[in-house]
Amino acid sequence: MRLTTGCLPFLFGLLITTSVFGQIQNQPDDGQWTMPAKNYASTRYSTLDQINTANVKHLKVAWTFSTGVSRGHEAAPLVVNNTMYIVTPWPNYLYALDLTKPGAPTKWVYQPNPTPASQGVACCDVVNRGAAYYNGRIYYNTLDLQTVAVDANTGKEVWKTKLGDINLGESMTMAPLVAKGKVIVGNSGGEFGVRGWMAALDADTGKIAWRAYSTGPDSDVLIGANFKPYYQADRAKDLGKNTWTGDQWKIGGGAAWSWISYDPDLDLIYYGTSNPGPWNPEQRPGDNKWTSSIFARRPETGEAIWAYQFNPHDEHDYDGVNENVLLDLNINGQLRKALAHPDRNGRLYIMDRTDGQVLSAEPFAYLNTSFGVDLNTGRLKFNEAKATGFKTIRDACPAPPGGKDWQPSAYSPKTGLLYIPHNNLCYESQGTQANYISGTPYVGMLSRMYAGPGGNRGEFCAWDPIKAKKVWAVKEMFPAWSGALVTAGDVVFYGTMDGWFKALDDRTGNLLWQFKVGSGIIGQPVSYKGPDGRQYIAVLSGVGGWAGAVVAGGVNTVDGTAALGFTNAMTDLGKYTTKGGMLYVFSLP
Amino acid sequence: MRLTTGCLPFLFGLLITTSVFGQIQNQPDDGQWTMPAKNYASTRYSTLDQINTANVKHLKVAWTFSTGVSRGHEAAPLVVNNTMYIVTPWPNYLYALDLTKPGAPTKWVYQPNPTPASQGVACCDVVNRGAAYYNGRIYYNTLDLQTVAVDANTGKEVWKTKLGDINLGESMTMAPLVAKGKVIVGNSGGEFGVRGWMAALDADTGKIAWRAYSTGPDSDVLIGANFKPYYQADRAKDLGKNTWTGDQWKIGGGAAWSWISYDPDLDLIYYGTSNPGPWNPEQRPGDNKWTSSIFARRPETGEAIWAYQFNPHDEHDYDGVNENVLLDLNINGQLRKALAHPDRNGRLYIMDRTDGQVLSAEPFAYLNTSFGVDLNTGRLKFNEAKATGFKTIRDACPAPPGGKDWQPSAYSPKTGLLYIPHNNLCYESQGTQANYISGTPYVGMLSRMYAGPGGNRGEFCAWDPIKAKKVWAVKEMFPAWSGALVTAGDVVFYGTMDGWFKALDDRTGNLLWQFKVGSGIIGQPVSYKGPDGRQYIAVLSGVGGWAGAVVAGGVNTVDGTAALGFTNAMTDLGKYTTKGGMLYVFSLP
Repeated sequence: MRLTTGCLPFLFGLLITTSVFGQIQNQPDDGQWTMPAKNYASTRYSTLDQINTANVKHLKVAWTFSTGVSRGHEAAPLVVNNTMYIVTPWPNYLYALDLTKPGAPTKWVYQPNPTPASQGVACCDVVNRGAAYYNGRIYYNTLDLQTVAVDANTGKEVWKTKLGDINLGESMTMAPLVAKGKVIVGNSGGEFGVRGWMAALDADTGKIAWRAYSTGPDSDVLIGANFKPYYQADRAKDLGKNTWTGDQWKIGGGAAWSWISYDPDLDLIYYGTSNPGPWNPEQRPGDNKWTSSIFARRPETGEAIWAYQFNPHDEHDYDGVNENVLLDLNINGQLRKALAHPDRNGRLYIMDRTDGQVLSAEPFAYLNTSFGVDLNTGRLKFNEAKATGFKTIRDACPAPPGGKDWQPSAYSPKTGLLYIPHNNLCYESQGTQANYISGTPYVGMLSRMYAGPGGNRGEFCAWDPIKAKKVWAVKEMFPAWSGALVTAGDVVFYGTMDGWFKALDDRTGNLLWQFKVGSGIIGQPVSYKGPDGRQYIAVLSGVGGWAGAVVAGGVNTVDGTAALGFTNAMTDLGKYTTKGGMLYVFSLP
Repeated sequence: MRLTTGCLPFLFGLLITTSVFGQIQNQPDDGQWTMPAKNYASTRYSTLDQINTANVKHLKVAWTFSTGVSRGHEAAPLVVNNTMYIVTPWPNYLYALDLTKPGAPTKWVYQPNPTPASQGVACCDVVNRGAAYYNGRIYYNTLDLQTVAVDANTGKEVWKTKLGDINLGESMTMAPLVAKGKVIVGNSGGEFGVRGWMAALDADTGKIAWRAYSTGPDSDVLIGANFKPYYQADRAKDLGKNTWTGDQWKIGGGAAWSWISYDPDLDLIYYGTSNPGPWNPEQRPGDNKWTSSIFARRPETGEAIWAYQFNPHDEHDYDGVNENVLLDLNINGQLRKALAHPDRNGRLYIMDRTDGQVLSAEPFAYLNTSFGVDLNTGRLKFNEAKATGFKTIRDACPAPPGGKDWQPSAYSPKTGLLYIPHNNLCYESQGTQANYISGTPYVGMLSRMYAGPGGNRGEFCAWDPIKAKKVWAVKEMFPAWSGALVTAGDVVFYGTMDGWFKALDDRTGNLLWQFKVGSGIIGQPVSYKGPDGRQYIAVLSGVGGWAGAVVAGGVNTVDGTAALGFTNAMTDLGKYTTKGGMLYVFSLP
């Protein structure tokens, strides 16, 4: 059976299963786009199908909007009640654009005035990954660790809550997720020796409901009686403290700076934690739990239900923060409530999202730093030959930005495929002694990255999560650093760092259409139904982020180790794109 | 007889006359765009006619390019040998884009590194009005007064000549004109007590060939035996010195910061000079020659042939720098080598360009500061009731930015009409004592501008230069601060500060098409034939300039006198547009 748009669930929580695959679909799809990942399952799938494989070649720019900021634009625009909401990089303006009027004039702009000093603790450009709409309000984070609630109609600030301290190296770049009346947000700063946390604020008042640290004793990690990780070894007491030496867990990273998914039926949120600090692994013996891990927690209390560490004692800056796409999959004849997680380490984890069991972990990107996952113990089989430390290593793949980084995948229930924008990077590194000074970089590794096998630095691929196999792939000159969007029109969209916005056939990967925007794309494309009933595609252009710091941050390319070694792989980016900050909205003529 | 494209001259210097009107057409039109004004006559008229009144409604964005700079973009893109050249506001990057490849990738970028301090002497945003192509090189000016010659193929600097000193309040924003092997450039700084000049550099070597001051003794103004102004009173000796008190001419303004036209047959260049300094007229008794004037000079020697002062003893910052469009007009049965000059004072001057005789000077904008021009003496009849000084005046029209400012008109030989983007602003002012300190503002007037009659702050109109009458007009909310372009397809293009790029029927003014760009438009649209033989329209978006300083410069709107009083008229601009810097290229599907 093949799903068509008409079959797709428009009712909250309706479960679709087929003989081949199933999926949860947690929100009604009314043509709006209320959260960056489109829905709690994080599929980034739009049921709109006016734009399809036959007519997408006619797509044209409907209108544009300049954000007035020329740094990396990683956010997804939101569309609610015929209004589009855009969050800019620092200084984190929030624009509301009226879609009912020609040219979508600005209804209001909210300016939170984050302190300029916060730019100094942004490891990798001053990005922001967007906002979330919930119950008449827009929620988002400022670089200086304030979560704000803004009235979606008026632009008036409802509340603002300070959650951290830039003097500790903390910042905030992630998009909140709102579930069960809680605004869930986490900190950034894995390269600054922060102590990572995820926190929940009451959506009405902004009061902090809970805060779960990634490291430290179980009481701080909100691990209690109901914590039942799948693997035996993960059930010991106080692993967030005991897998470290001395007090290193207090500055051990594990920031929660990226995506959160939510399963309303299981009542669990899922998110990953960053690399441990410092990068130099010789300075932090132990597994360094719960860095480079995934947590499943109750949204109302933060209580941990299970956890799993993708990269124990991480050697390569392999954060575990990448998206978790919630899918119900028929695996070996059994319907599994699963999640798909393409990790920085280059492996595509299919896990049972009820308990954290790893079902498969096959490479979606070229890698040589691990040999696989022991499905009995769940433990990653490291390649010790590529272990870092004070020694010099060469040709370790993937490089620190991983097989992929934060750039989120999309999943189509029509094709059953996951669409993954990702990297193809290797690196060499030499460890140095990292010295902790509050609020300054705490890394201890000099790296130089470069293109992996084939010479292309990026790839966009389609992945079959059941067969655990790549179906097709398109090579990209630069890391594919934008999000993906897939639609019921069988078109998958993404952008490239050299400024092409592309539409591919989601079954073949054939290029159907492309358009040259002004600045490289690292934003998240979305699709919505306009007040005129027509389907639109929107994406922010504005190169930057870690991959684009060489252009957006004016990094001098003479030193390849700049931007944590990414510069070495991106010295030519400036020949292909320029800084910018512009929204593009596309439609059929 | 009506001219069609096929009738237009493609031979250098060919003269066209008709029973109704004539025109000089000084350059072959091969679908390139080699200077901002398109040709020496400054008609901004393209003979391309693929895009016409019938199909312009299908126009769509072909590609875009981000300049990486978010200040006012006033430049015209150039197109030569299938390469597009773009000059940005400070830091004055020069981009070469390869039109033969998809998405027009950057061939090279030239970065002149003008000193950041030059931004401090830019009266009205850090704009640049573009470059000129000549004989394999791109010539343009940097804000810190360097004229550069860059190899058009390689982007290599050929020469760079320093022409002035920011410590004297000088800057450079104008686009050079190259004629007879001379690169002709002038300074900015009428609000900084500079001494204005126009200079010519040898195109091959960058060596200064001549420099003609606007004020001072005849020897400095390059007035000699061949100086034959039309009006008797202008023939006295050393007027550039003797119409001033004491040494005031040394800091008296008369900057040459805007357009130059050239008539190869008469071998004359034409350009205007800025307001006198300071604004407060009570501080500078006399006619203040040759400020607010027009000069006709020989391009090779700079020798003045005639001059005329539009605004003797200027009371209202009425620079004389606006464009001079060279037209051969049949006036009262007589073919006149004329020029059309829409002045800041709101009058459309039709002058004999052989000698400077004023043929007509009718208002194209609402005005009450003058009653007309005495055609016998050539002298403007000031309205003394609106004279400024230490006293307070109210409701003087036009305001200092004039009936129009630098934003250049276009002229179609098909319709015989001039298309004028302009302002509708009045103001109140109070004089203060201006004190000269080198390199700082020297103004002495607190002004507050506001919309003129009707409430619209701008207008785009078609003007019949023979009948000296307005044919049609379109009201604009904000000053129409972009250039105009008119084509053989009978379409006239311009952009608005609130971000609409518009196409009108050149005979009726009817709106045929409009597109919402990202940031307000103050650039100069151009048209060119691509390597695929198709017609393209290109324009830079990026609000700013004097009118847009409130957005681009982050001017606080609390003080309406900020930005020389323009702020008071533009407090709401930020509600309608945002900063940006983006090239848009349009074509038919």
